[in-house]
Amino acid sequence: MQYLTGTAKKDTLEISELLTSEWEGKKVKVNGAVHAIRDMGTIAFIILRKREGLLQGVYEEGISGFSLKDVREADTVEIKGVLEKNEKAPHGIEIRMKSLKLLSEPEDEMMPLAISKWKLNTSLDAKLNYRSISLRNIRERAKFKLQEGITRAFRDFLYEQGFTEIHTPKIGAKSAEGGANLFRLEYFHRPAVLQQSPQLYKQMMVGVYDRVFETAPVFRAEKHNTKRHLNEYTSLDFEMGYIDGFEDIMAMETGLLQYMMELLKKKYATELTVLNITLPDVSRIPAVRFDEVKQRAAEKYGRGIKNPFDLEPEEEQLIGQYAKEEWDSDFVFVTHYPSKKRPFYAMDDPEDPRYTLSFDLLYKGMEITTGGQRIHSYRALREKIAARGMEEEGLTHYLDTFRHGMPPHGGLGIGLERLTMKLVDEDNVRETTLFPRDLSRLEP
Amino acid sequence: MQYLTGTAKKDTLEISELLTSEWEGKKVKVNGAVHAIRDMGTIAFIILRKREGLLQGVYEEGISGFSLKDVREADTVEIKGVLEKNEKAPHGIEIRMKSLKLLSEPEDEMMPLAISKWKLNTSLDAKLNYRSISLRNIRERAKFKLQEGITRAFRDFLYEQGFTEIHTPKIGAKSAEGGANLFRLEYFHRPAVLQQSPQLYKQMMVGVYDRVFETAPVFRAEKHNTKRHLNEYTSLDFEMGYIDGFEDIMAMETGLLQYMMELLKKKYATELTVLNITLPDVSRIPAVRFDEVKQRAAEKYGRGIKNPFDLEPEEEQLIGQYAKEEWDSDFVFVTHYPSKKRPFYAMDDPEDPRYTLSFDLLYKGMEITTGGQRIHSYRALREKIAARGMEEEGLTHYLDTFRHGMPPHGGLGIGLERLTMKLVDEDNVRETTLFPRDLSRLEP
Repeated sequence: MQYLTGTAKKDTLEISELLTSEWEGKKVKVNGAVHAIRDMGTIAFIILRKREGLLQGVYEEGISGFSLKDVREADTVEIKGVLEKNEKAPHGIEIRMKSLKLLSEPEDEMMPLAISKWKLNTSLDAKLNYRSISLRNIRERAKFKLQEGITRAFRDFLYEQGFTEIHTPKIGAKSAEGGANLFRLEYFHRPAVLQQSPQLYKQMMVGVYDRVFETAPVFRAEKHNTKRHLNEYTSLDFEMGYIDGFEDIMAMETGLLQYMMELLKKKYATELTVLNITLPDVSRIPAVRFDEVKQRAAEKYGRGIKNPFDLEPEEEQLIGQYAKEEWDSDFVFVTHYPSKKRPFYAMDDPEDPRYTLSFDLLYKGMEITTGGQRIHSYRALREKIAARGMEEEGLTHYLDTFRHGMPPHGGLGIGLERLTMKLVDEDNVRETTLFPRDLSRLEP
Repeated sequence: MQYLTGTAKKDTLEISELLTSEWEGKKVKVNGAVHAIRDMGTIAFIILRKREGLLQGVYEEGISGFSLKDVREADTVEIKGVLEKNEKAPHGIEIRMKSLKLLSEPEDEMMPLAISKWKLNTSLDAKLNYRSISLRNIRERAKFKLQEGITRAFRDFLYEQGFTEIHTPKIGAKSAEGGANLFRLEYFHRPAVLQQSPQLYKQMMVGVYDRVFETAPVFRAEKHNTKRHLNEYTSLDFEMGYIDGFEDIMAMETGLLQYMMELLKKKYATELTVLNITLPDVSRIPAVRFDEVKQRAAEKYGRGIKNPFDLEPEEEQLIGQYAKEEWDSDFVFVTHYPSKKRPFYAMDDPEDPRYTLSFDLLYKGMEITTGGQRIHSYRALREKIAARGMEEEGLTHYLDTFRHGMPPHGGLGIGLERLTMKLVDEDNVRETTLFPRDLSRLEP
């Protein structure tokens, strides 16, 4: 028997630890993966890939206590040496190596992709086929580090605002928005579906905690094969009670985006630099009615309105352009979507029930959020369900929650991969999805 | 067009805001759900349920500017009044009400469960059948607030330790631990499964970020109908590279538990008080070999060993009792599990390959974590796969990652609902699962 007493500090150092005061000339020990070897004749550079970035080791024949021939790219190693200044090296430092210990070796050092190049010039398909390799490229992996920052900001901001985190089931007997586009499975001889949204559950939990959020996968069996659709993605959802109107939801999202950009600036500066990203100004976000902005964009860009009830992707793009040109904003809230395109739980505008008290948030011309106020009256809910010709079957628990009282409430869902995609200026959502699932891709 | 500029502060106050300095005699506005009404004749108490707890409103006939008859339990309301001290009231305060505005009304004020009682004395089945109602009980909802604290501590600690959060797909062509116990579905005319663990993905990502974690649902089609099994649960997973041995994983988990208990003490004191919980001492956690502790428990409690390769639930319980009695610890690491009961990726002990460099963590006699060192050599992995008579089909991407180099690494998975269950001293994991999925339960 032995006792464990907690995380022990190791003597191998991370890059940020190397950069503390009085580091010059210090003997240090570091580990990492051999990202690249650059043999210049009498000296050579061994570039290590560490979680905080690249680190240059200098090999000098006869001085470094090992042979360069014994090191290969994709080895993982532990090196000892003396830390020196070098303005041309990553982080302005390098290690003059005294010894090298091999921790592991690859079976095959020939990488399928040239990951040590600054830009991984290859097709999206090749990147995805070798996902666990292509992400070893410094720029590729930086995208998903920023994605972490987005999720982290979402949670931290909402904790501060008094929200409670929930975990709702992904297998269910019935789903939120009706019968289409559901993945079906057999659950111990009963038919079941994968949830396409935590919508009904998060509403039910508003009656318990007032404010709740969830960050979890959702599943949509849509047969779209576009640059913006996935069949599984991470949804950042929140729902809050005691609102005065759906403007409260938009204000909360604006506050969230402000918090997010501050966090990214503060804690993810390395990744922003690596990807050369300028964060958007979110100090104020314009909000404009659906029919008004649709009309305005149609007029300004001379494109006729084909579908008065929804926004086509091209229209979203033009509205994004309009918001940028007219209001100098990458973001724009489009409010009051037509009722017939919104789900049953959306609250209709009492002043004109053809429209809902709802919104989408567009970022650089693409929808990244759908939200709005929900119906909180049991009777109004049942009336709307009946008016749509829907069945109450499978909604019993949801409706019972309203039968026993619910505050006025609303919420939203943010597509994590889409938000990341727009932030890093990619044009295909698969670029910012770790392991995408689409019509043709089920692996890796 | 209007501009949104961020979260606006409302003039309705939360309980913590009421308790700031110089609050006595102050006019305040609060909202909440009517949790209970206690009519004492000339005066009455309206108890509001708010997200931070209960709040007492005092109704005085003729003074409060509304009629008690117009308020019902399960209404949501906004009240104005004067804040006064009352040591018998929750938080030592009450509001002498001047006005009340109705925000929403229930269809039916008769609750299916007596949620306003301190202890909800009802069956587990009734609680689960009316989950969104039963959780309105203050003690019931406190359990899931603590569950939030556990997840939050997991993430915050790992961020501090240089881990990166990842989101791996839940629908896949193949799963980590082989063919059994998988939910199957059709994915656009191809067979697919729901992942029972993010194991293979998190290992693949160690080659990218060195240290990764995920908090997400996993799915197991096990036909167990016990108090400790679920068919869908939340798994807290991490995986880390450059380890010296599996002891590094146990040390990291010990550090995590220490961080977790501190966070719960600091930020979840209300819930700990409500549930009357004493946090466990995790300053040191004993670790003992599987065969040794199995033998010791068998001897001490006079129970014969039936299965030398695994721990039966009753054995886990006795080992938990042993750790409490002999080492005064609620937790005990059981190390070196037999190889034949561990998955193919587990690293065998080079000193005795019948055992693995792995562990389970037991908490109050129940397994809440499985972890260990993994094989990082491509050849060793393929040899073990072959020796087990497994197919490499479906493991191509996983194996390719190792072909191109991986550091020594290991990790673990924690069952969130089980850890919560033991922390709050429940005896059925469904008590600490928001919406459980088991053999018979697919709703709500």
